[in-house]
Amino acid sequence: MSTAAPRTTGQDRLWSVDEHLEDILAAVRPLEPIELQLPDAQGCVLVEDVMVPVSLPPFDNSSMDGYAVRVADVAGASEEYPAALEVVGDVAAGQADLLHVGPGQAARIMTGAPLPPGAEAVVPVEWTDGGLGEGPVHGMRARSLAPEQSSGRVRVYRSAEARAHVRAKGSDVRAGDRALEAGTVLGPPQIALLAAIGRGTARVRPRPRVVVLSTGSELVQPGEELRSGQIYDSNSFALTAAARDAGAIAYRVGAVADDAETLRSTIDDQLVRADLVVTTGGVSVGAYDVVKEALSHFGDEDEPGSGIDFRKLAMQPGKPQGFGSIGPDHTPLLALPGNPVSSYVSFELFVRPAIRALMGLEDVHRPTTRAKLVTDKALTSPRGRRQFLRATCAEGTVRPVGGAGSHLVAALAHADSLIVVPEDVESVEPGTEVEVVLLG
Amino acid sequence: MSTAAPRTTGQDRLWSVDEHLEDILAAVRPLEPIELQLPDAQGCVLVEDVMVPVSLPPFDNSSMDGYAVRVADVAGASEEYPAALEVVGDVAAGQADLLHVGPGQAARIMTGAPLPPGAEAVVPVEWTDGGLGEGPVHGMRARSLAPEQSSGRVRVYRSAEARAHVRAKGSDVRAGDRALEAGTVLGPPQIALLAAIGRGTARVRPRPRVVVLSTGSELVQPGEELRSGQIYDSNSFALTAAARDAGAIAYRVGAVADDAETLRSTIDDQLVRADLVVTTGGVSVGAYDVVKEALSHFGDEDEPGSGIDFRKLAMQPGKPQGFGSIGPDHTPLLALPGNPVSSYVSFELFVRPAIRALMGLEDVHRPTTRAKLVTDKALTSPRGRRQFLRATCAEGTVRPVGGAGSHLVAALAHADSLIVVPEDVESVEPGTEVEVVLLG
Repeated sequence: MSTAAPRTTGQDRLWSVDEHLEDILAAVRPLEPIELQLPDAQGCVLVEDVMVPVSLPPFDNSSMDGYAVRVADVAGASEEYPAALEVVGDVAAGQADLLHVGPGQAARIMTGAPLPPGAEAVVPVEWTDGGLGEGPVHGMRARSLAPEQSSGRVRVYRSAEARAHVRAKGSDVRAGDRALEAGTVLGPPQIALLAAIGRGTARVRPRPRVVVLSTGSELVQPGEELRSGQIYDSNSFALTAAARDAGAIAYRVGAVADDAETLRSTIDDQLVRADLVVTTGGVSVGAYDVVKEALSHFGDEDEPGSGIDFRKLAMQPGKPQGFGSIGPDHTPLLALPGNPVSSYVSFELFVRPAIRALMGLEDVHRPTTRAKLVTDKALTSPRGRRQFLRATCAEGTVRPVGGAGSHLVAALAHADSLIVVPEDVESVEPGTEVEVVLLG
Repeated sequence: MSTAAPRTTGQDRLWSVDEHLEDILAAVRPLEPIELQLPDAQGCVLVEDVMVPVSLPPFDNSSMDGYAVRVADVAGASEEYPAALEVVGDVAAGQADLLHVGPGQAARIMTGAPLPPGAEAVVPVEWTDGGLGEGPVHGMRARSLAPEQSSGRVRVYRSAEARAHVRAKGSDVRAGDRALEAGTVLGPPQIALLAAIGRGTARVRPRPRVVVLSTGSELVQPGEELRSGQIYDSNSFALTAAARDAGAIAYRVGAVADDAETLRSTIDDQLVRADLVVTTGGVSVGAYDVVKEALSHFGDEDEPGSGIDFRKLAMQPGKPQGFGSIGPDHTPLLALPGNPVSSYVSFELFVRPAIRALMGLEDVHRPTTRAKLVTDKALTSPRGRRQFLRATCAEGTVRPVGGAGSHLVAALAHADSLIVVPEDVESVEPGTEVEVVLLG
């Protein structure tokens, strides 16, 4: 290797999108799992089977507000011939010391409260006089508002079978059952289940911390004044947002000027908080492509697996790409082209899958579909390149937005999908069914 | 109104799901917009049309690494008869002081660099000898590595038309164009566009702050020991996660015991950070239903629109529901039933749309689809109730998960959708096409 062309393996051949992605996914390992509090585990992947330690519900309980009764006491009860029972007290949810319901007795019981010993069924309050002696009532009234109702007599107007309106212990999940499988993504309902079985924490792969930096001496922070020859830095904002969208904790580092030493030390500083580094700009074949220059020398060159490979990919937009690992922990780094649309498409194709692989997700890809191309004239695509065109997709049809030019960031903002034109296709007629990546 | 039944308008009739939702959406106003930094505006709704202040690209620039030339100087150039031009220097991206390219001259130019005055086109470096005098080259080398190449002579092997490999000023967006419309949700590509046109902030509706609290003396924090009659608090975890998922900033308040005064003062304390309050439990007709008791007296009863209405809804699960506004700012409050599945389904039907209405989103609803029911036996549903059944939906078919019992939180954790059985349907045969809410 000469000094002028360090670590640029494969720079003279074209790599396919699939080869590049395969290399990335082969190198990116899921992050080590940690035990997180449930709210912090949201969106993360569980790494262990979670077993149920205690049955749910943990005790027989009432599914209605009403009266806990013995079946024999209400057998044959009707509006004409109600059963009159002695109310021995209230059973509330969470109550530990339970009344005993003996023959001829009933206990007022609230939804979720444990079925007291002796009782065999619950009759809903609407089937009773609520202890008022004035015919069927609509509901129970709070004890604080009507203390007299928690004792006295109640008339029951209908019979009840054993276990009526009783939720049996273990009818939801039983102790020893598997509540959730390793690999499950923890959304709100899974968090509900973990909490319900008493798990305050979960063992998951954490969200990857992704550091995003853009390079280019021409870049100015949005909101500041643009001078001659300058443009606004949009990549660091867009890719930070996209990384967050993909599930990462994303840190935006401002634009770094085209100076290899500054860039090297900036990246070096950031490694402490990075599970993945993403740079934009400076990876094509240009004379000022400092990312390439800076990263070609990064890390211990004698260390296997260290260093960044720069490649030309058979795709449009996004031809120049870099990938490898840097620093003592072999932190993965993806170097994307600097053009806003190229970098965004590259993020979708390579960085998003890498983030999702770090999270331990099984399916790292965006959903794809096939849709009928709606356009005035045939699309053209360079031979030997896989082309990605911004588009809007709805109801089985897909329409390109803006042209093929890789600088049309305005079109990107109005697109919801990418049309994929394969390497061997140079022209796509209107009406053809095409592959579409849904960005949604 | 008597003390025993305060503010319980409509407690004796059944309200439809649609009526309740309509009342909620009629009362919930989108939050007042504020100017946010781009990263904070992610996922928010833009409230103004954003116009382009400066054309993009802001100047004619090169789409390739190569040489900026005059068309006449390269006319008829070929490998056999190359045009030899004097290299007057480099033009890098971000460079302000530009060289002038005169007749017989060329400037090395990098992708994105401004086209220098005098030049009319760019010839890619691959069409030249790169200044080395040794035939076509593959790419440019960094100036720091090859300083001699930024001057001297270059041979050009192909002709170029005017504007070849030049991105014209304003070809992406033009000053005065509308970049984004009011109502646009700011995802990564929209943030890219805003940054690219120099906008460091955006005027959006902020994310709503949602305070979630569960009530019930039987509730124990997950991870702690469960005693007789107690269950774990899952609702506050699940609904906080669900609120965050819906786009809110969600605060979980631990479970509050069944005591009206404590509950009232807890809610009162939380109002300072709430755009919406969600409670679970204590809204059915039970004697210990403190939410109902506490909230029935909340706020200034003489103030129109203040106070909470408790209703019975014609749905299963989730019959008892409360909604209204409390406190000096008339903060909306939704009181959901305490059963985990009922509260989750209620969240999906009522709270999620409310959160999205606060965000100013046009479409507040989950997507729905129609799918063929796959099940061993007909589903049964209570007459006059709209039933929501947990299910998994894929490829045009939908299968119920678990039974209809409202306590099956385990089934919920394995569902990705809800089957909707309309009020007038009591039985659904296998193979019937049913409405399905996709929980995403």
